[in-house]
Amino acid sequence: MSETNTLTPEARAERLAQRRQQLIDGFNNIPFVVHVGAQLVYLGEDEVRAEVAMAPHLVGNTFQQILHGGVIATLLDSVAGVASMGAAYARLKGQPREEKMRRMAQLGTIDMRIDYLRPGRGERFIAGAKVVRIGSKICATQMTFHNEKDVLIATGNAVFHY
Amino acid sequence: MSETNTLTPEARAERLAQRRQQLIDGFNNIPFVVHVGAQLVYLGEDEVRAEVAMAPHLVGNTFQQILHGGVIATLLDSVAGVASMGAAYARLKGQPREEKMRRMAQLGTIDMRIDYLRPGRGERFIAGAKVVRIGSKICATQMTFHNEKDVLIATGNAVFHY
Amino acid sequence: MSETNTLTPEARAERLAQRRQQLIDGFNNIPFVVHVGAQLVYLGEDEVRAEVAMAPHLVGNTFQQILHGGVIATLLDSVAGVASMGAAYARLKGQPREEKMRRMAQLGTIDMRIDYLRPGRGERFIAGAKVVRIGSKICATQMTFHNEKDVLIATGNAVFHY
Amino acid sequence: MSETNTLTPEARAERLAQRRQQLIDGFNNIPFVVHVGAQLVYLGEDEVRAEVAMAPHLVGNTFQQILHGGVIATLLDSVAGVASMGAAYARLKGQPREEKMRRMAQLGTIDMRIDYLRPGRGERFIAGAKVVRIGSKICATQMTFHNEKDVLIATGNAVFHY
Repeated sequence: MSETNTLTPEARAERLAQRRQQLIDGFNNIPFVVHVGAQLVYLGEDEVRAEVAMAPHLVGNTFQQILHGGVIATLLDSVAGVASMGAAYARLKGQPREEKMRRMAQLGTIDMRIDYLRPGRGERFIAGAKVVRIGSKICATQMTFHNEKDVLIATGNAVFHY
Repeated sequence: MSETNTLTPEARAERLAQRRQQLIDGFNNIPFVVHVGAQLVYLGEDEVRAEVAMAPHLVGNTFQQILHGGVIATLLDSVAGVASMGAAYARLKGQPREEKMRRMAQLGTIDMRIDYLRPGRGERFIAGAKVVRIGSKICATQMTFHNEKDVLIATGNAVFHY
Repeated sequence: MSETNTLTPEARAERLAQRRQQLIDGFNNIPFVVHVGAQLVYLGEDEVRAEVAMAPHLVGNTFQQILHGGVIATLLDSVAGVASMGAAYARLKGQPREEKMRRMAQLGTIDMRIDYLRPGRGERFIAGAKVVRIGSKICATQMTFHNEKDVLIATGNAVFHY
Repeated sequence: MSETNTLTPEARAERLAQRRQQLIDGFNNIPFVVHVGAQLVYLGEDEVRAEVAMAPHLVGNTFQQILHGGVIATLLDSVAGVASMGAAYARLKGQPREEKMRRMAQLGTIDMRIDYLRPGRGERFIAGAKVVRIGSKICATQMTFHNEKDVLIATGNAVFHY
C-alpha cells in the first residue's frame, strides 16, 4: 500500500494542491521561460496554458514586426512539458515518491513539430497543451498558439519520454 | 535583360559580397536572436552556421542544467531561414531587384520538426543548416545542433515559403 | 467576370455536384488507394473521410496482427489531399477553369507527420482530414485515424502545395 | 553470465547469421510489404535498404504517373523499423533471450515525418534507413528514398519505442 492511501482526504487534497503549485512554480522559474517573459496561467487536468506579452526583443521578422518562430517553439515545448509532467505523475500513482521524482527529473522532449499557420501578430499570446496519449514511458501532446483575438497562429505536436 | 548582367565582374563580386554581408547583418540583428545571444559564424553556399555560448538564462531543465529546447529551436529555425534566403535569392536570379526584395521580405517558416537526441550539455553550441531542395515557391532544409565537442544534440527539418 | 457568375443557380448547383463527384471518383480511382482497398465515405466542407476494412494483406506486425503504419500513412495522405484539393479549388474561385485544373493537377504533399498513438486494431478504420489553413500557394491539414469503436489510433499533420 | 558468452566464436557467428536472416525474412514476410512488392536488399550495421519496382498499382497521381506518398511512407517506416530492431537487439546484449524477444515483439513507431522533395518518378526505388540514436527505450532513425538514378525523392525521420 502506498503512502498516499493512508492519508486523510484533507491531507490528500493538500498534497495535490502542493503538487500543482510545484508545477506552476517549476514552470515560472525555468530560466529560459523567465528570459522570454512567459508565465503559466492555467493548469487543469484537460489543458495547460501559458501566456507571453508582445515585446521588442521577441521579434523575428523586422520587416513584418512579428514573433520569432523560436518564441512560439519555446512556449509550445514548455506547456507541453508541464502537461506531460502532470499526466506522467498521475500515471505513476501508487509508486514510491522517490521513483516519481526520479522519473519527473528525467522527463524530456523526444521530438516536436510546429506548423506556423499565420504571422505571429498581436499584443498577447496564449500557448495551450493537452495530452493525447499517456503510456508507461511516453507521452504524446498537441498544442495550439493563439493571439489575444483568438487567431490561431501555430499548432504543435510533441512527444516526451519520462 | 536584368541589371545584373550589365555589371562588370568586379561590380558583380562586390554586389555579391554586399549581399552576403546583408544576410550576416540581418541574422545578427534579429531581435530574438540577439536576446538569445547567438551569432552567425559561417555563411557558405553549402551550409550556414551559427553559435551560442552556454549561459544561465538559456537553461531549460534545472535538475540537469541543460539547454531549453526552445533555444535549440530558435537557432535551428534561424540558420535554416538564412540558408533558405540564400537559396531563394539565387533561384530568383535574373528577376528585378524589387521582386527579389519583396520575396525575401515575405519568406517564412511553414513547419519545423526537431529531434532532441541528447541533452543540451556543453560550453558552446553550433547550429548548422543546409538546403535540401529549392523550388519556385518552397525551400526544404535540414539542420544539426552540436556542442563544442561535436556531440550531436539535435537534428531539424524545416520547410520555408518565399 | 468569370464564366461561373453568368450561370443560373441551378447550373451552379449542378456544377458543384459534378465537381464533388469528380473529387470522389478521383479518390476512389487512385491506383494505390484501390490496391489498399480504401474508399471515400464523406466529402463535406468541414471534413473528408475515407474508410478501409481490416484485411490480412494490410497487417504490419504479425506478432500483434495490427495494421502496417504505411496503411495509416496512405489513408491520411489521401484524405488530406482531397480536403486540400477542395479548399484550393474554392480559393481559386473566379480564376479561369484551365488555371484551376492546372493547379489541381500539380497539387502535392510537401511533408507529413504521423503520431502513432495506439495499435491499429479493429475491423474497420476511418481516416478524417480537415483544412486548418488555406493560403494562396499552400494548404495545411490535420488528420485523425480511428477504428469502428472510435478509438483514436493515429493523428497526422500534412502540408500541400498547389 | 549470459548464455551467449559461453558459445564458441563459430557458434556466435552462426547465431549472428541466423539473427540477420530472421530480420531479412521478417521484413520480406510483412504482409503489407509483400502487398506493396518491396524487398530487403541490404542489412548492414550502418544502414538497411529495401527496394520496390515501379508498378501500375503503386501510382498516386494519375496526372503525373508518380508513386503514391503512402508507398514511400510504407517503405521508409519498414526499413527504419528493421534498422531499429537491429540496434535495439544489440543494445540489449547480455539480457536473456526471452527478454530480447519480448522487447522486439513490442517494437513500434512512435511518430514519423516525411519530406516529399521531388516527384516519385523512376523504374526502381531504394529506401535506406540508419539509426541516429539508440537509447534504453527509444530509437531515432533517419531515412532516404531515391530512384535508380540516385535522385533524392524523399527523406524521413522516425522514432521507435521498444
